Amino acid sequence: MLLDSSVTLDYYAQAPVPAIFMLRPRSGWAQWIAREEYLITPMVQVVEFTDLYGNLCQKLVIPEGPFSIATKSRANVPDDIDVDASAEILPVAHLPPDVLHYLLPSRYCQSDQLGDLATSIVGTNPTTYQQVAQIRAWIHAKVTYESGASDSSTSAVDTAQTLRGVCRDFAHLGISLCRSINVPARMVVGFLHELEPMDLHAWFEAYVGGRWFTIDATEDFPKGNRIVVAYGRDAADVAISTIFGSIQFNGMTTTVTAVR
Amino acid sequence: MLLDSSVTLDYYAQAPVPAIFMLRPRSGWAQWIAREEYLITPMVQVVEFTDLYGNLCQKLVIPEGPFSIATKSRANVPDDIDVDASAEILPVAHLPPDVLHYLLPSRYCQSDQLGDLATSIVGTNPTTYQQVAQIRAWIHAKVTYESGASDSSTSAVDTAQTLRGVCRDFAHLGISLCRSINVPARMVVGFLHELEPMDLHAWFEAYVGGRWFTIDATEDFPKGNRIVVAYGRDAADVAISTIFGSIQFNGMTTTVTAVR
Amino acid sequence: MLLDSSVTLDYYAQAPVPAIFMLRPRSGWAQWIAREEYLITPMVQVVEFTDLYGNLCQKLVIPEGPFSIATKSRANVPDDIDVDASAEILPVAHLPPDVLHYLLPSRYCQSDQLGDLATSIVGTNPTTYQQVAQIRAWIHAKVTYESGASDSSTSAVDTAQTLRGVCRDFAHLGISLCRSINVPARMVVGFLHELEPMDLHAWFEAYVGGRWFTIDATEDFPKGNRIVVAYGRDAADVAISTIFGSIQFNGMTTTVTAVR
Amino acid sequence: MLLDSSVTLDYYAQAPVPAIFMLRPRSGWAQWIAREEYLITPMVQVVEFTDLYGNLCQKLVIPEGPFSIATKSRANVPDDIDVDASAEILPVAHLPPDVLHYLLPSRYCQSDQLGDLATSIVGTNPTTYQQVAQIRAWIHAKVTYESGASDSSTSAVDTAQTLRGVCRDFAHLGISLCRSINVPARMVVGFLHELEPMDLHAWFEAYVGGRWFTIDATEDFPKGNRIVVAYGRDAADVAISTIFGSIQFNGMTTTVTAVR
Repeated sequence: MLLDSSVTLDYYAQAPVPAIFMLRPRSGWAQWIAREEYLITPMVQVVEFTDLYGNLCQKLVIPEGPFSIATKSRANVPDDIDVDASAEILPVAHLPPDVLHYLLPSRYCQSDQLGDLATSIVGTNPTTYQQVAQIRAWIHAKVTYESGASDSSTSAVDTAQTLRGVCRDFAHLGISLCRSINVPARMVVGFLHELEPMDLHAWFEAYVGGRWFTIDATEDFPKGNRIVVAYGRDAADVAISTIFGSIQFNGMTTTVTAVR
Repeated sequence: MLLDSSVTLDYYAQAPVPAIFMLRPRSGWAQWIAREEYLITPMVQVVEFTDLYGNLCQKLVIPEGPFSIATKSRANVPDDIDVDASAEILPVAHLPPDVLHYLLPSRYCQSDQLGDLATSIVGTNPTTYQQVAQIRAWIHAKVTYESGASDSSTSAVDTAQTLRGVCRDFAHLGISLCRSINVPARMVVGFLHELEPMDLHAWFEAYVGGRWFTIDATEDFPKGNRIVVAYGRDAADVAISTIFGSIQFNGMTTTVTAVR
Repeated sequence: MLLDSSVTLDYYAQAPVPAIFMLRPRSGWAQWIAREEYLITPMVQVVEFTDLYGNLCQKLVIPEGPFSIATKSRANVPDDIDVDASAEILPVAHLPPDVLHYLLPSRYCQSDQLGDLATSIVGTNPTTYQQVAQIRAWIHAKVTYESGASDSSTSAVDTAQTLRGVCRDFAHLGISLCRSINVPARMVVGFLHELEPMDLHAWFEAYVGGRWFTIDATEDFPKGNRIVVAYGRDAADVAISTIFGSIQFNGMTTTVTAVR
Repeated sequence: MLLDSSVTLDYYAQAPVPAIFMLRPRSGWAQWIAREEYLITPMVQVVEFTDLYGNLCQKLVIPEGPFSIATKSRANVPDDIDVDASAEILPVAHLPPDVLHYLLPSRYCQSDQLGDLATSIVGTNPTTYQQVAQIRAWIHAKVTYESGASDSSTSAVDTAQTLRGVCRDFAHLGISLCRSINVPARMVVGFLHELEPMDLHAWFEAYVGGRWFTIDATEDFPKGNRIVVAYGRDAADVAISTIFGSIQFNGMTTTVTAVR
């Protein structure tokens, strides 16, 4: 499907304040960015850099007064996510070095503390994508989607206890459980067509059989029609905006529409 | 100035043929890409990767039949190029490691063979941007712009002898002379507003006083209003298209227009 | 001082088990590795790679039976650590992109939750290295070094409550407090001459005034004579050995001696 | 075989002069560096960095007076080089992005000008390692090893005409011919056991069937027992020493001996 997405962020700054944004989807394995727009009003000097995970980030100083960032992108994405029940979980010895850091615990994904839970879900000998699917199914069945049940400090260990949360909590728990059975897993922030209500979305990817698979524990039947905006270890790495100081935030608008 | 640029490439392939394109300008030090479009017709699977120089490249297989690539970009660029007569040529010991490879000779820039010429132009003790300006002035005065006087195998050593060539030859000679006095220099391919006739353009950058300066030996009075598409050691690195096989090339159209 | 250091790790494996080691100090800003030895017994196939933080890591499969790794290095290191009370804390806008990820919270360093504590120590307007020194002094005064008071799951938030721990806990707390005042901070694992009892040691570095400073909250008067073995966000990144399965660990021996 | 190698470089500088060295073999696919020593006399401040090709380089300023660099390494290397007649030449579309730059022409390897020669040797449809072997055999048969027949400016095009040269000329010609049939090829500088007379040696690697193969056109029957010191596009990238100014060079000593 060809998707148009947009994000607009509006601010009012009483004084200049530095900020970093991460809003530029990149063409990759499963998506082709056919068009992109990135408007900064008023225009200021921007330093764009690539972070540790390959995301394009924009560093700038928000000037005093009203300030907005408006990005649009048109992406060619698959309608369905790939599923491969027979894909094998690679032994660590066969993992490529550049996915190994996705095995380590991180701020919101304390995989070192969730091994028992993972074992209770998938048994002691996980071998294929099926066990990742079991983790997804378990989270989907046990965790209740509840806006306001979590906040920016909520981690996977918390969610494993409360069993309530939003998309990022579902993702953090899934990532942690995968890592605790030695499956590399990474956070994704992006757009999902027909998400209700429309907003940015979070899900995760698991590395099985030599490639990354999209996993989303929030949906009954996970669909494609997603645009990846950023990758990272967990939410700490993929904040679409980081403001280093105080600012008045006047809201975010997100749209995702199918083209034709 | 806000500039809109476009490139369209048209092909007809008798059989599938692999290709790599390098047509995606990136936001950076002196330019902000506010909008970008990259249409591939028919759409095929693309692998996008970042090369050694930070350029975004697209690897794909051109299918049998007609094929076109059409890119557009809107960029915020300065009207004038920076000039700083007092910027100091840094001793090699003070150069950052990531510019050192721009001191080495390359396919079209045999800086190891042009030391005597460089010395004859700038003397034995180059100290500032002024010597780079002298190199530019010398090339501008001595080399005649002549379409057809060179081809894809022409190198800086050739141009130093024939004293005729096109923009890429001017750039290669400038790069070589800079490197031979231990000034890092790199090739740039991109757009220049009001170039006559309109086409892609090549120039170079020299690293002086801790930053890169735009240098263009083809113009009487080098202007800004440039969009950088790709960087490299020389033309071998910055081909906007590389076709690995035979194909019928039906032409390229380039436009650059000021917005408003 | 010229220091000789060594680490020996001994194992016995009932079955082959994959492992990653990180034991190779690298020449850098403050240390020169004049000699290095890395013996693996029995020798097996090793994949060496550089991780996200620049550490050289060795991936291998430990074979069945006895297995040992013995590394030695001779390093030229300064006797004293640098201190610069007047070094300014750079505004985030002036930080180079490659240190920005050291501002983010991580597994053991939940800087997002320790802002109030940091403010209570350094006030609301930290400006120089002095505030980092205050953080160090606060930890040194308040936290009691107590072996066994923490374990591999202990984080900075835990240590801020218990006020007891070992070197890695001191480092995690220092890193978190620095990050919460927007000072990039990273974990270091390495050797410290005359540490009692001899073992690997952990400390941290803070980025102030455009460079990294060594900070160690465990010592009364922090000395130099350190060899850095690895850098990372926190202990999750700098495990000198990670064994993916079960193995019998027969102990580690560490030595550090001055040459002549 | 376990090999001990050493290089000693002796200089006398009338005035301080910057220099870059590249003398540190790295553990990799086919070699394990069990021990390494790198003595600089007198010791000076060194900046070590990794270049575009993964080589560890040392940047320093040689002080006035006598100066020497002495490196030693003990490496575990295979006795034989791998040969695989059935390994397929991958179509460009299937090459990983990080080998693509080894297809481009470079300073000493003008592959863009040697296509006809390559075709005359391997035909128009090269398909496997066999064609790379034919290139090697052709060079071995046609080019005469002759010390003094070439110099630091000699390129593959020159060697294809004179048919005389030393190891680096053999390598440049082989690299160029491989690239001209779309086989990625890279320069190697390193040690070869029992080379007569002992010196540093140069050969090349060709990327076939998804991996690099060692190719050496100077030997009748190429052997293993090699230690790779550095990789690059051609000799311009792998100079073991680059001195930016004038210095008195008092000689180099190289040894390679089998352990036990």
